[in-house]
Amino acid sequence: MRATVIHAPHDIRVEEVADPVVRQPADAVVRVLRACICGSDLWAYRGESARQPGQRIGHEFLGVVEATGADVTAFAPGDLVVAPFVWSDGTCDYCAEGLHTSCPQGGFWGSVGSDGGQGEAVRVPFADGTLVKLPADAASDDRLLTALLALSDVLGTGHHAAVGAGVTRGSTVAVVGDGAVGLCGVLAARRLGAERIIALGRHTARTDIARLFGATDVVAARGEEAVAAVRELTGGHGARAVIEAVGTEQSMRTAVGITRDGGAIGYVGVPHGSGTGLDLSVMFDRNIALRGGVAPVRAYIPELLPDVLDGTVDPSPVFDLAVPLDGVPGGYRAMDERTALKVLVTP
Amino acid sequence: MRATVIHAPHDIRVEEVADPVVRQPADAVVRVLRACICGSDLWAYRGESARQPGQRIGHEFLGVVEATGADVTAFAPGDLVVAPFVWSDGTCDYCAEGLHTSCPQGGFWGSVGSDGGQGEAVRVPFADGTLVKLPADAASDDRLLTALLALSDVLGTGHHAAVGAGVTRGSTVAVVGDGAVGLCGVLAARRLGAERIIALGRHTARTDIARLFGATDVVAARGEEAVAAVRELTGGHGARAVIEAVGTEQSMRTAVGITRDGGAIGYVGVPHGSGTGLDLSVMFDRNIALRGGVAPVRAYIPELLPDVLDGTVDPSPVFDLAVPLDGVPGGYRAMDERTALKVLVTP
Repeated sequence: MRATVIHAPHDIRVEEVADPVVRQPADAVVRVLRACICGSDLWAYRGESARQPGQRIGHEFLGVVEATGADVTAFAPGDLVVAPFVWSDGTCDYCAEGLHTSCPQGGFWGSVGSDGGQGEAVRVPFADGTLVKLPADAASDDRLLTALLALSDVLGTGHHAAVGAGVTRGSTVAVVGDGAVGLCGVLAARRLGAERIIALGRHTARTDIARLFGATDVVAARGEEAVAAVRELTGGHGARAVIEAVGTEQSMRTAVGITRDGGAIGYVGVPHGSGTGLDLSVMFDRNIALRGGVAPVRAYIPELLPDVLDGTVDPSPVFDLAVPLDGVPGGYRAMDERTALKVLVTP
Repeated sequence: MRATVIHAPHDIRVEEVADPVVRQPADAVVRVLRACICGSDLWAYRGESARQPGQRIGHEFLGVVEATGADVTAFAPGDLVVAPFVWSDGTCDYCAEGLHTSCPQGGFWGSVGSDGGQGEAVRVPFADGTLVKLPADAASDDRLLTALLALSDVLGTGHHAAVGAGVTRGSTVAVVGDGAVGLCGVLAARRLGAERIIALGRHTARTDIARLFGATDVVAARGEEAVAAVRELTGGHGARAVIEAVGTEQSMRTAVGITRDGGAIGYVGVPHGSGTGLDLSVMFDRNIALRGGVAPVRAYIPELLPDVLDGTVDPSPVFDLAVPLDGVPGGYRAMDERTALKVLVTP
């Protein structure tokens, strides 16, 4: 089959690789219908996260089960399924409590020796613990299929950020980051009943989606200027719930600056300098909490799925460019140059 | 009157100062019956927190109201009262929501221009918003009076840490820091129903108090060795709730190391390097939350007071040395040299 392989920074290729097969009794093989490129894939693309030459890449996909191992009981060939961005055994204490990302047997798609999502098919370890079944008729609804793909990462990650930030009915929320995760944070905050959602962003195409997703205010500024603007919008105090969906020093500094005393930052931006943006003395004096991390999206899919299926929540607008598998390298370039927000891949 | 004044690092003196008087209509003057020296006073004593020569010092006291301004309605001369370690107006949004430490009109005892607790009397701004009345008959119960003094800081701060760490009935808690606040964290965790409380400490006199306060296990180690020991006690996972009551790089590093994935660190140690001990990438991967800061003890006194009055909670053992006012400089030396845990001052 053909799959995406990263050979070096900026050297992403689609090439012939071995067909995935059932190796362990708990495995399934999934034929990919939809995959996509994540903002976090860009860290590898830019060489800021290390990869071994030849590693697969891509961690978001949905598709059709093609084969199952002897121990797989929840799925059969032909089932439409979505995969969260980590696999997990579904049986350990962490999986039981909804923290699938800490499963000792879990792992990331595209890690050494595993398949990535940006290919024609994927071997899925611990299929019963990992995959979630989707209604078969969704396969014929192009818009819905794209929306459901967001369950593999960005929608669940946005939800994790909103939960970490403590969003509840009536909350005032500010969102740092206008990428797909930040925008899904807006969507998740609205879903949780936030009354006021302030989106920070300077790209109209993105802030238009933020407004579509429920943002009530847009702050088109960065750094100190953004902090001042959010404070002005919130009676001088800042927002009680803040979503940090970037991971850089500046984004975290901004997040701290716009959080109301006693509030919380829900952080889901993979840390690339953001630790340095945390001034613990400021957070201490102002009782600002920090909660988040890698999102256990497997735990959230059952909760979010019904709302995506009935259209209450529609994250599909975050995908603003669609490419076939051969178009993946161009898709990385487009996201790296910020001409695309999030690239859909249809193998 | 006589009060404690800090002139320079290691230069603490008890000297004659102006008698406090009612200056604003909301003021009260309180004659001090009990005060004490706080671990955080040592940062100033050691020159690690800046002070202007001649500043007062001490932020924990209880005593008897001696005079009140025209606007004071809740107190009258003769009332026995305890003061939290910050004053606050009691009327702003932050005070209303229990975050008195963020009151815009609030301030710290011993800040420039204000009285400190380690003296014969204190001018209390916003008396109605700040002070809490105690039963008059407590004044004749020496042990109880000492226990009640802990409400001014260490008991409420330990409680804040336990709340930040998410302690609930049945929790497993680990406590980093064997000072008075850490020990009060043990006490607060037990009060909140923790089932297992692991105290880290290498001084038997202190860990004996930890056991008295409810610690079920003691780890007499630091750093990596302590992390390994706590993990061994918790099935390899760490404690879901961790109290950080020191504020240094090493203490925070230990706190992160002993927190179970998905758990929380309740931090109340004034940051003196602890930001550097936070590895955000580790916290991200393991979904460890950080919550805490300067404790709004004014908010907690009404909740904690009944348990102190009826003896359910008795923090008095943290005071292991009592001195008259003239003994305060020696008290600082004793705490600096760790020959005393916490020094009680009886002016």
